[in-house]
Amino acid sequence: MTPDLRTRIEAFGSDLSPTMMQGTQALFAASFTGFSALTQTRRDLSYGPDERHRLDIVRQEETQSAPVLVYIHGGGFVMGDKRSPEGLPFYDNVSDFAARNGMIGVTVTYRLAPDHRWPAGPEDMATLIAWLQSNIARYGGDPAKIYLMGQSAGAVHVASYVAQPRFHQPSGPGLAGALLISCIYDIAAADANPFHKAYYGDDTAAYPACSTTDGLIESKVPVLATVSEFDVTDFQKQAASYVAAYAEQQQRFPRMHWLAGHNHLSPVLEIGSPNSTLEPIISNFVAQTANQGE
Amino acid sequence: MTPDLRTRIEAFGSDLSPTMMQGTQALFAASFTGFSALTQTRRDLSYGPDERHRLDIVRQEETQSAPVLVYIHGGGFVMGDKRSPEGLPFYDNVSDFAARNGMIGVTVTYRLAPDHRWPAGPEDMATLIAWLQSNIARYGGDPAKIYLMGQSAGAVHVASYVAQPRFHQPSGPGLAGALLISCIYDIAAADANPFHKAYYGDDTAAYPACSTTDGLIESKVPVLATVSEFDVTDFQKQAASYVAAYAEQQQRFPRMHWLAGHNHLSPVLEIGSPNSTLEPIISNFVAQTANQGE
Repeated sequence: MTPDLRTRIEAFGSDLSPTMMQGTQALFAASFTGFSALTQTRRDLSYGPDERHRLDIVRQEETQSAPVLVYIHGGGFVMGDKRSPEGLPFYDNVSDFAARNGMIGVTVTYRLAPDHRWPAGPEDMATLIAWLQSNIARYGGDPAKIYLMGQSAGAVHVASYVAQPRFHQPSGPGLAGALLISCIYDIAAADANPFHKAYYGDDTAAYPACSTTDGLIESKVPVLATVSEFDVTDFQKQAASYVAAYAEQQQRFPRMHWLAGHNHLSPVLEIGSPNSTLEPIISNFVAQTANQGE
Repeated sequence: MTPDLRTRIEAFGSDLSPTMMQGTQALFAASFTGFSALTQTRRDLSYGPDERHRLDIVRQEETQSAPVLVYIHGGGFVMGDKRSPEGLPFYDNVSDFAARNGMIGVTVTYRLAPDHRWPAGPEDMATLIAWLQSNIARYGGDPAKIYLMGQSAGAVHVASYVAQPRFHQPSGPGLAGALLISCIYDIAAADANPFHKAYYGDDTAAYPACSTTDGLIESKVPVLATVSEFDVTDFQKQAASYVAAYAEQQQRFPRMHWLAGHNHLSPVLEIGSPNSTLEPIISNFVAQTANQGE
């Protein structure tokens, strides 16, 4: 990251203010280098019964048996979409990056709170994975190499799915890896906020059972996590607690990348801009893990 | 890091075996791209009364008022040197990198245990900084921009100096930043081993007072730390504990870089090889902090 870019991001502050959110989006919309002419997009395929069970697939035509990078957007459990309504390049930027690098890119919508509360998130991840396992080969993907990458609430849904075997099929979670970009791990220890109440409900006594910490640590699914230098305070504290819990149980430091100069939104928005921080982290993780199950 | 390089490093294992140490050195000696023809080296300047109070300075002739990157080698408190005896490029590789990038590079030796026990390390750091403040300007360095970068036991000495104000001058620690490459933070919580006993002595009741955790967290000196994916187990646990303690007190994740694919030795040995992981981390840290004190 250039010193100028860092200064701009730091100036937005860490809180999720409209200035910070719109400013960060505008910054990376301006530096986005454009979509590849070689990639093809299929829109709004249905992966389940709900109107929000939709996904877009981006690929290069010749790609076959490729790792599948599936992006689960954030939005506090109550909002967000696979595509920016304002015509910004997000989050096609993620799937186009995947397609340009020998993967199949998938962006997803899922059911939202408060209409759909816990455990709608991991339920939708299970529905999504079942669809991908049955269908992604015809779009060039290898059903044995599915990666779920979630950001913020999307990361929580991915983590919840990985951590709780009751959502898995008898054959297992069906994932080659999980990427958690700014995640909350232990909802019971997190700051109370309206987004959490909208999704997890008012009964905080039920929150500890929703924690993903121990389940992630015990899971055989390779997990990569990130936390940003200017991330929202609670996400920074949660990442540190996860590191401590992981090291306590596994006697090593987890695959937790601290992203210098980034805020809560910028790592994903930067994908497709020059010198993206996340692009090589994703590529290396996929390269290291894609053949582990074989 | 390339998948091939990662595979080779992983194959050495995490323990400090002769195979791991010699293998890692050989790997990066082979990929080292050579010293710059534009850098000049002064050898064995004396910065204090002991025979081990010696340093080498590498610079480009035209460099003036530049940040000073000072490398403090590791070696379990009882061994190590600023130069590899076998004619390997270490650790001139660090100071040559500094000099090629607009800094002054300094490599240092210091007194060793068991002849010189705690607090010989932070004492030598204090002696070193006093010498640099008085002398580094004539070699092109800015005495207000001194960075201490230590690895392993060297990192412990740097951390001990930063964390304990009794070693500072009345004007303060005299540092623009500290870089801790695989550090032990809390010697009392660390695994007991002969190296620790050689330096800290047999009286473990005295160990808690040697902890650097709280002092580092409270210090105004910018601190950057790293831990490697294949680092020695105890260093990984210590890094995680430091992250947790820092977040508890500061409500944010510390500047702790997890270095994918690296082991205890490789991050520093890789400096001067293509696509070094540490080089941009060092450069960005210095760029961000060099003018903070002005």
